[in-house]
Amino acid sequence: MKLDTLLVVLDYAGTFAFGLSGAAVGIRRRLDLFGVLVLAFATAIAGGVARDVVIGAIPPAALSDLRYTVVPIVAGLVMFSMPGTVRRLRHLVALFDAAGLAVFAVTGTDKALAYGINPISAALLGMLTGIGGGIVRDMLVNDIPIVLRGEIYAVAALAAAALVVVGHWLQLPVGLVAVVAMLVCFALRLVAIWRHWRLPVAATESDEHLP
Amino acid sequence: MKLDTLLVVLDYAGTFAFGLSGAAVGIRRRLDLFGVLVLAFATAIAGGVARDVVIGAIPPAALSDLRYTVVPIVAGLVMFSMPGTVRRLRHLVALFDAAGLAVFAVTGTDKALAYGINPISAALLGMLTGIGGGIVRDMLVNDIPIVLRGEIYAVAALAAAALVVVGHWLQLPVGLVAVVAMLVCFALRLVAIWRHWRLPVAATESDEHLP
Amino acid sequence: MKLDTLLVVLDYAGTFAFGLSGAAVGIRRRLDLFGVLVLAFATAIAGGVARDVVIGAIPPAALSDLRYTVVPIVAGLVMFSMPGTVRRLRHLVALFDAAGLAVFAVTGTDKALAYGINPISAALLGMLTGIGGGIVRDMLVNDIPIVLRGEIYAVAALAAAALVVVGHWLQLPVGLVAVVAMLVCFALRLVAIWRHWRLPVAATESDEHLP
Repeated sequence: MKLDTLLVVLDYAGTFAFGLSGAAVGIRRRLDLFGVLVLAFATAIAGGVARDVVIGAIPPAALSDLRYTVVPIVAGLVMFSMPGTVRRLRHLVALFDAAGLAVFAVTGTDKALAYGINPISAALLGMLTGIGGGIVRDMLVNDIPIVLRGEIYAVAALAAAALVVVGHWLQLPVGLVAVVAMLVCFALRLVAIWRHWRLPVAATESDEHLP
Repeated sequence: MKLDTLLVVLDYAGTFAFGLSGAAVGIRRRLDLFGVLVLAFATAIAGGVARDVVIGAIPPAALSDLRYTVVPIVAGLVMFSMPGTVRRLRHLVALFDAAGLAVFAVTGTDKALAYGINPISAALLGMLTGIGGGIVRDMLVNDIPIVLRGEIYAVAALAAAALVVVGHWLQLPVGLVAVVAMLVCFALRLVAIWRHWRLPVAATESDEHLP
Repeated sequence: MKLDTLLVVLDYAGTFAFGLSGAAVGIRRRLDLFGVLVLAFATAIAGGVARDVVIGAIPPAALSDLRYTVVPIVAGLVMFSMPGTVRRLRHLVALFDAAGLAVFAVTGTDKALAYGINPISAALLGMLTGIGGGIVRDMLVNDIPIVLRGEIYAVAALAAAALVVVGHWLQLPVGLVAVVAMLVCFALRLVAIWRHWRLPVAATESDEHLP
């Protein structure tokens, strides 16, 4: 399979997985059918839309490419109509989700570089492409975003984005760099889930009002 | 009255109603005067600003047309200075709000189509123009957006947006389509309030951690 | 010291202070290291990014100028590694924060005017530049933004922005107007902290469901 085809397939899978994850959160919070679909859609596209708005890729790919509209809505309908089944498949969903995170972080960084964004900002935007959907999903249902608190998630996306930037700087083959970066993000995320890796929390226990 | 004049009048009324609704939420949450005005303003313009940023209509109409600045602030001041009176008029506010939803959904869809957005995305953006303000309003005061949970609201906006897109596709007269679409949205919203229509919620009762 | 140099120095200081404030909130909410850095970064850049996206200054200065990436991350690391020390310096942080608010409000208004935004909207965008970071910070950790509820904060930013607009209208010297506007915002903010000035809250005690 050629790299481009692989990226497209993974992009579908990632968008679908993000849609499932958004719908799952919506169902747990007792949203109605429409709310569940909105959450599925928002989770799947928010990261890419934010990146495109900021780099000036207007209209955002998520709006000009109908795939990004249809896939998450289908994912939302699947989750809504058989939540029990999908929950039993939750390891598969986590797998898709990690794949989506890896793909979005890598393609997001590549796109930002292609639009002339400086390398450090491009890496941050690649990370944002990966994690933006989860942040919006959690904010919409009034949770502190899990990516700010939970297992290593955004860091895996940032690692992939950083590898893309370094590869771009060293002028390594784009396809090779993309595959390696995605594998690193994917592996890091899965190992973090498996071993419950977490980042440190500051020593303070204080809750007083800070400036 | 000509269609353009009618649209302008309804646009004023909708902006004012959205301003009242934002201010009402702010007052209930004990925000100070400034917070109430910010909420009135954000509720009235957020949907349109999000649409304009995404389709590349920069600067957004809400910033280049002072009407969108002045009207919600006046609405906020009215609500702040006589909340009791306005509350007694709350059926009138709900009427205005439904009118605003209808106008914003229709004009938002038309504007997105005029900027070359594909029909499905244009309908979604029209819906977003209608419901975006309410989402931002509820997120600012730390609520799960009512449009994700409550009575049929976003679905009414989506119905209007879909009618505009179909009319555009069939090349029907724009003015006629706009009026029909607005009436459908308006009627759907009012009947939903009156009959307490709701969308289904998924069967699951589970609250366990999903992926 | 020339005005431009002064503005750059204050801009550094303000960005750093906003980074400290974001990190402080993240630490109090028990976010991990990464979450704390994201909050520091988001607090420092959100206002400017929102302004730049809306006026069409793409890519936003916060992404093309690495200073806005490095400074808040350093602030976040400082806060994370020695929260106790920084807390003892909290009066200094509040001072920096007020300086940042003043600088951002003034430079934000100037930039909006330079992009041809009308005066009233330019003042609102200047205020948004100053307060946007704090709003995003509080929304990310699931609080009602303090700027909507607390001591006079946004009003101080709006006062500075309004002075810039008036000075622009009267064609007064830009540098002089900027300094006066910053001093007014800075003083207003510090006096509001010192004297616990607050804006009025509406008379109603009602919590019933409003439209």
